[in-house]
Amino acid sequence: MNLDALFNAKSIAVVGASSREKTVGNDIVKNLVTQGFEGKIFPINPKIDELYGIKVYHDLTEIPENIDLVVVAIPATMVPEIIKQAAAKGAQSAVVISAGFKEIGNLALEEELRNVCRQNHVALIGPNCLGVINAQNKMNASFAALMPQVGNIAFMSQSGALCTAVLDYAEKMSIGFSKFVSIGNKADVDEVDLIRYLHTDPQTKVVALYVEQLSNAPEIIETLVELNKGDNPKPVVILKSGRTEAGAGAIASHTGSLSGGDNAYEALFAQAGIIRANTIEDLFNFAQVFCKNEQASFEKIAVITNAGGPGVLTADGIINNGFKMADLSEDTVAKLKAVLPPAASTHNPIDVLGDAISDRYRQALELVVRDPGVEALIVLLTPQSMTEIKETAQAVIDVMAAYKQETGRKKPIVVSFMGEKTVNDGVRMLQAADIMTTTFPEPAAASLAALSRFTAWSKIPVEAKLTYNDVDRDKVETILAEAKKNGQTSFPEAEALAIFEAYRLPILASALAHSPAEAKEVCERLGASTRFAMKIVSPEILHKSDVGGVMLNVTAADVEQKYSEMMTTVASKKPEANLQGVLLVEMAPAGGLEMILGVNKAPGLGTMIMVGLGGIYVEILKDVNFAFAPLTRSDAVRMLTNLKSSKLLDGARGQLPVDKEKLIECVGRLSQLVVDFPEIVELDINPLLALSDKALVLDGRVVIE
Amino acid sequence: MNLDALFNAKSIAVVGASSREKTVGNDIVKNLVTQGFEGKIFPINPKIDELYGIKVYHDLTEIPENIDLVVVAIPATMVPEIIKQAAAKGAQSAVVISAGFKEIGNLALEEELRNVCRQNHVALIGPNCLGVINAQNKMNASFAALMPQVGNIAFMSQSGALCTAVLDYAEKMSIGFSKFVSIGNKADVDEVDLIRYLHTDPQTKVVALYVEQLSNAPEIIETLVELNKGDNPKPVVILKSGRTEAGAGAIASHTGSLSGGDNAYEALFAQAGIIRANTIEDLFNFAQVFCKNEQASFEKIAVITNAGGPGVLTADGIINNGFKMADLSEDTVAKLKAVLPPAASTHNPIDVLGDAISDRYRQALELVVRDPGVEALIVLLTPQSMTEIKETAQAVIDVMAAYKQETGRKKPIVVSFMGEKTVNDGVRMLQAADIMTTTFPEPAAASLAALSRFTAWSKIPVEAKLTYNDVDRDKVETILAEAKKNGQTSFPEAEALAIFEAYRLPILASALAHSPAEAKEVCERLGASTRFAMKIVSPEILHKSDVGGVMLNVTAADVEQKYSEMMTTVASKKPEANLQGVLLVEMAPAGGLEMILGVNKAPGLGTMIMVGLGGIYVEILKDVNFAFAPLTRSDAVRMLTNLKSSKLLDGARGQLPVDKEKLIECVGRLSQLVVDFPEIVELDINPLLALSDKALVLDGRVVIE
Repeated sequence: MNLDALFNAKSIAVVGASSREKTVGNDIVKNLVTQGFEGKIFPINPKIDELYGIKVYHDLTEIPENIDLVVVAIPATMVPEIIKQAAAKGAQSAVVISAGFKEIGNLALEEELRNVCRQNHVALIGPNCLGVINAQNKMNASFAALMPQVGNIAFMSQSGALCTAVLDYAEKMSIGFSKFVSIGNKADVDEVDLIRYLHTDPQTKVVALYVEQLSNAPEIIETLVELNKGDNPKPVVILKSGRTEAGAGAIASHTGSLSGGDNAYEALFAQAGIIRANTIEDLFNFAQVFCKNEQASFEKIAVITNAGGPGVLTADGIINNGFKMADLSEDTVAKLKAVLPPAASTHNPIDVLGDAISDRYRQALELVVRDPGVEALIVLLTPQSMTEIKETAQAVIDVMAAYKQETGRKKPIVVSFMGEKTVNDGVRMLQAADIMTTTFPEPAAASLAALSRFTAWSKIPVEAKLTYNDVDRDKVETILAEAKKNGQTSFPEAEALAIFEAYRLPILASALAHSPAEAKEVCERLGASTRFAMKIVSPEILHKSDVGGVMLNVTAADVEQKYSEMMTTVASKKPEANLQGVLLVEMAPAGGLEMILGVNKAPGLGTMIMVGLGGIYVEILKDVNFAFAPLTRSDAVRMLTNLKSSKLLDGARGQLPVDKEKLIECVGRLSQLVVDFPEIVELDINPLLALSDKALVLDGRVVIE
Repeated sequence: MNLDALFNAKSIAVVGASSREKTVGNDIVKNLVTQGFEGKIFPINPKIDELYGIKVYHDLTEIPENIDLVVVAIPATMVPEIIKQAAAKGAQSAVVISAGFKEIGNLALEEELRNVCRQNHVALIGPNCLGVINAQNKMNASFAALMPQVGNIAFMSQSGALCTAVLDYAEKMSIGFSKFVSIGNKADVDEVDLIRYLHTDPQTKVVALYVEQLSNAPEIIETLVELNKGDNPKPVVILKSGRTEAGAGAIASHTGSLSGGDNAYEALFAQAGIIRANTIEDLFNFAQVFCKNEQASFEKIAVITNAGGPGVLTADGIINNGFKMADLSEDTVAKLKAVLPPAASTHNPIDVLGDAISDRYRQALELVVRDPGVEALIVLLTPQSMTEIKETAQAVIDVMAAYKQETGRKKPIVVSFMGEKTVNDGVRMLQAADIMTTTFPEPAAASLAALSRFTAWSKIPVEAKLTYNDVDRDKVETILAEAKKNGQTSFPEAEALAIFEAYRLPILASALAHSPAEAKEVCERLGASTRFAMKIVSPEILHKSDVGGVMLNVTAADVEQKYSEMMTTVASKKPEANLQGVLLVEMAPAGGLEMILGVNKAPGLGTMIMVGLGGIYVEILKDVNFAFAPLTRSDAVRMLTNLKSSKLLDGARGQLPVDKEKLIECVGRLSQLVVDFPEIVELDINPLLALSDKALVLDGRVVIE
């Protein structure tokens, strides 16, 4: 895909250029002509000759040279033809602003557009979008009025309307962008394509997205693992709407896309190292923290403040985000005591007191930034009458620059000069010096958390997917093929267990017997000292225990006698039933923890594995975790350790800890099964009995398409 | 307390007035003289004669008339004497800016100051504070430079430094205040006194507080229930820092006050109907929503938007805050279809599309606001090139005013014109018309939730505290008096059960027996068909079951024989033990749900009752709730229904539901016990067995001071 022809187009045709103001076709030409773009612009309109001082062509064919990009704002049905014409003029990329495709149910037209673009090697953004801006070359190929300042955030939005609000907000907040893309219906180019391209864009440090729906989770995971566990990790921050069902409903009517449910997105984001933002403000705070800091993974943060209350609020934020308040070294504390007034707090949060002028901040910061126990910093300032706003900003800038000079590294920092007009000059200075600022301290810790977590994730080496060579794929293939032939889609207990057994999921030993002698033979073969549950086998009997068709704790020694007893009892209670024999199943060990494993399809996204504790935990507490297959070992570990009741796995209340390795293996084999057989749409293993030395699949079911 | 003399002082002395700029003593005089205060100002300084154009007195006694208020900014040790002098000049109120009291360990000096004030009937704000501002009469008796605009929020802060940042922020956000109080160390006047006063202040619609620590939870609860369940409810919104232990630690070193722990504050806020803010931004959003709307309790919200994406984000916020998306009536939908373009969404969220000009907003809003199924509204706007910012603001203003005209009531509404500069004119118009605005839509739903929840709480009638007339208070008094005499502070099982029994908490029937015959007699008395646990009674035997000293399922029929058997067995295993007899306890019924009740003191706040499910629920999931004694029935119900695993009480997984009335009674009797005996500092009932027809205290312990 040639996205370079899009972002670095030297010549652009605008089809649907209009002389009527406040129309899309007028705005695009105006934005291209008046905002500093230095390439060639060819507006197309059969009825006019000039617009914003440049020549208007009546037709694409009239353009005297080749074009790189065509921007289209004409009625939907005419778009595919225009793409063909543009391709004939050399266009390698297209931005289709026009609406009237998938979002109003015109799936066929969208399909046609996609095909035309792909056949002609035209990379397509849209349709149904606001357009594309490249802040570096001042190319505003959109109908948004504002050209953002140049920065390091590449922003993509599935909502065009949100783009205009974001541009307006960004101007006020001095947020700079590299690329700004309204991705619309994503008929061709989607987020993954753009992320791949932006990864090679030296101007982009972080990718921020607003999305309503994503597709193909395994591809997203694979791409981001490949790109961001390499030597040039570029974080992706996503604000995903439709978390709730009502929200998701609104999306469905809005873009015709289906929500994958929030569990699915939580799983996807964890596996792909995507940073999730919960609000628009978070989205830009999290993006900013990566632009203004070097990537770093850390846990100990120091706070320097001239106000106790905000210092405490910040400490709360640090702990709530999973960090620790840094303990200052004795040496630092002693030196702080020497330079700060007696009433100051020389323990973290370091309170330089309300009457601190810039020198006190400077001295404290110089000591604290060099403390080896301080891995990151939050500096707070409230404007008191003696507070030196600009001088304090300069002190922060100087000390951090000197530290970088000395060590070759920036130390992560977020500064909150609290307030608005009074502190504004200082805030501007900090921003200009590439230091992240927030109006209030609460978002500071959350932003540092995004920085640290992504960095930590990116440093975990790429892991192989869990696979096992001893699985009997052919056997499952046979079972499923047979079932498909018979129109069978559901596999209850015994048949499901056969599928699990083929993938070496640990099940209880069992065998059929058709006579007392055979029953004895089976028991001896499966284990002379083993206890068995004996169950009647008869197509006419559904509720076995009601007719005396279940006996527990049977052994090889007494199985012959018990077999005969059972036949007599059942025959007397259900004389019409055809008694074929018995199933002898090893008795499950006493104790252990009942768990549940499952499989679910997230529409459009992929197949998820679910892990949870069984019984009330899953039914009442919904204590389950998801991950998309195929899984790595880390995915399986995270699913287990992130359970709210995970302490039970470690042996709470006097129990032995369960064998987690065996659980991980079960999860891994299940992942392999559903990857090998994507026709499996639903699957439950319930219960999976977790014991101190093994795990056992006691029951389950499988459903195929 | 005469807080009117404070806020409406006609004459103010400033002790510690200074001619040196950027000092506290200079700022206060400057602020009083230059910001429009029309009363008399008497700066006091022995060394100067004039300041900011007014006469400076050398001594309080020199002032030729009486004063209402004295503002003090001189070294701490001199303050009590100055208060006496001021009182002699008629002062009924004092604001002590000076630091150097409790916060640096000078408890005695603070105590002296308090005593002097109380003896002289002077209401004291501070010490160690920034001062007091009354925006109505332009009295800025503080060293904060900005006079806030007049509005309906009374703001109080335990952090003086935060005040200056808030004033700066408020100016930018057009947030207006009635009173603005830095409460400092709260040596005399505290939040409760101020809330009581502000409740009578017609200018104040809502009280917003930043606090680090509160005291006396029952008093706060009682005051707010009395004031806010009356005919003039005024919401209190609190930002409480120190939620985490590190945060709490920082407070301890900062103000010398102890944190009550976050569970305690959660309980207090729920019982007192206090709205909790998690961030500074929330604090002002929640306060604003009450200033700009009439109080209302509701659940169905409609969203009108010109952008699908933000509409979905808002729907998410609505659901996450416990509301419902309003279903529009068929009539409304039909009328919307008639006025909106075909591509618009006429279902909630109502999408008027990106090209909507003001008329489309006006028409949609006119229909939606009158839909009987719409109880509140959120209106969103993203600035597109054709969007009419000011005209749309005017449309919202007009429609809401007309609705108020028609119905006599305002319908709750929050408007988010997303962005900054482009939308600013519209935002200002909305603010001027008393319509609440937010920059992004996410805080809108949370703010409406604050409005609705407080209103709903305020409408629940005042409830009596749970009390029972059949308790035997004398018996507990005797038990505790006896224990105190012997220096005993801890009451294990049997003694604790005696205390519980006196308060008619349901315990199992039990009695001592000292011979086989007596044992038989006891069994027959307690229930001829009842099964008992028989336990050896011997001061030398701690682990009864190790020596055969516990037998289960004993009945009247076999108790004589079992008694003899037990004596023989125990005597043979523990020959040195003095066997006094046995305790016969009714066997607990099988099944049921193990719960836990407890009592805990929150330092400074009061005694809390705890309710939870036992076993793993309390140990691993920490699924417990707290409330301060004395409890109402609603408190007890809330503690039970807010348990994460409360569905278990309703009979999950085929169990019968437990008898909640009996649980409520247990909680109520426990509340009465700890109110009657405040010396009880710790108490556990574990387990409390909850059954379908009763609850049973099986074991417990009590600790007194």
